[in-house]
Amino acid sequence: MLKGIIRGNIVSTRKQESLVGSKFMEVQLIKNGALTEEFIIAIDSVGAGIGETVLITTGSAARLALHNTSCPADAVIVGIVD
Amino acid sequence: MLKGIIRGNIVSTRKQESLVGSKFMEVQLIKNGALTEEFIIAIDSVGAGIGETVLITTGSAARLALHNTSCPADAVIVGIVD
Amino acid sequence: MLKGIIRGNIVSTRKQESLVGSKFMEVQLIKNGALTEEFIIAIDSVGAGIGETVLITTGSAARLALHNTSCPADAVIVGIVD
Amino acid sequence: MLKGIIRGNIVSTRKQESLVGSKFMEVQLIKNGALTEEFIIAIDSVGAGIGETVLITTGSAARLALHNTSCPADAVIVGIVD
Amino acid sequence: MLKGIIRGNIVSTRKQESLVGSKFMEVQLIKNGALTEEFIIAIDSVGAGIGETVLITTGSAARLALHNTSCPADAVIVGIVD
Repeated sequence: MLKGIIRGNIVSTRKQESLVGSKFMEVQLIKNGALTEEFIIAIDSVGAGIGETVLITTGSAARLALHNTSCPADAVIVGIVD
Repeated sequence: MLKGIIRGNIVSTRKQESLVGSKFMEVQLIKNGALTEEFIIAIDSVGAGIGETVLITTGSAARLALHNTSCPADAVIVGIVD
Repeated sequence: MLKGIIRGNIVSTRKQESLVGSKFMEVQLIKNGALTEEFIIAIDSVGAGIGETVLITTGSAARLALHNTSCPADAVIVGIVD
Repeated sequence: MLKGIIRGNIVSTRKQESLVGSKFMEVQLIKNGALTEEFIIAIDSVGAGIGETVLITTGSAARLALHNTSCPADAVIVGIVD
Repeated sequence: MLKGIIRGNIVSTRKQESLVGSKFMEVQLIKNGALTEEFIIAIDSVGAGIGETVLITTGSAARLALHNTSCPADAVIVGIVD
């Protein structure tokens, strides 16, 4: 899994139907407590907001996190770090 | 997911039958609002064109985005960023 | 698989139900016997603790390691290196 | 997907039975029209030869490209770029 | 697929039951005939030994190479290069 801070959200009006309602967040990754220059776009599943530190799962696990195995997601926010 | 700008399309006449009709786009990735030197080739699924900023899903999620789970795609454009 | 040393654990109270009870460890990767600046967050499955050198499996294999194929994990600690 | 030029082929006499007959090609990747220092080894599925520019699919999609979902391939050449 | 030279083996007494009997090899990757500073840990499936040049498959394909789709492997040696 990856850890990072949510920096913003991305709005896409024209998108696949299966993604309607998804909240796309741009997340700056953290390694060993330090911010990196790496970013990933993940769909939120836990009600996380900008500025929160979150855990992200990637790959086919992302779909399980959405409880929708037909959603074409490859990265999902699955937890908020305390 | 990844975000980027479509820079061009790639033409392949000799290809797998399952890919006939697919529109291959070369996309320059964007991180945190800035262009990077990274590129990915993705199949379009939303009618996106050169110069548009798009969202791309990768891995096994790409096939779900095409509604064709037998298509050997590993990256698909699933949304156009507003 | 990846090899690394467990450097810490990550606490997330608000998380997906399917992840309740999972122990998230931050692991510093080792290549050819030398520490790198790369880190990964993995769920423990073998009772490993901070300071131990471990093996990590990634991707869809991670779920098999948890014997729970509906858990949205993408990295799991599967062994402790002697 | 990835784009690159086939630079050579790799011969492996002792290999898994499921890979017998597979043609392994070493491909130098191209980004935005420029050669990179990145290489990948992919199985050919379209009759491509050394010096040709090709499209490669990776991950679980590779197996679909081979029409053999039990073949342990993670990268397959699926098209020749015009 | 990846190509590399086996540099050593990794011993893990405490590991997942599904991995008992697996031979973990640390492999130094080769790109275009030159050694890199990249290493990967892969399970051997072809009787390869230290110093041999091998082909490695990664991701979900690794499990197919082991003929054991419940083994949490993400990298497996599938051939020895001549």
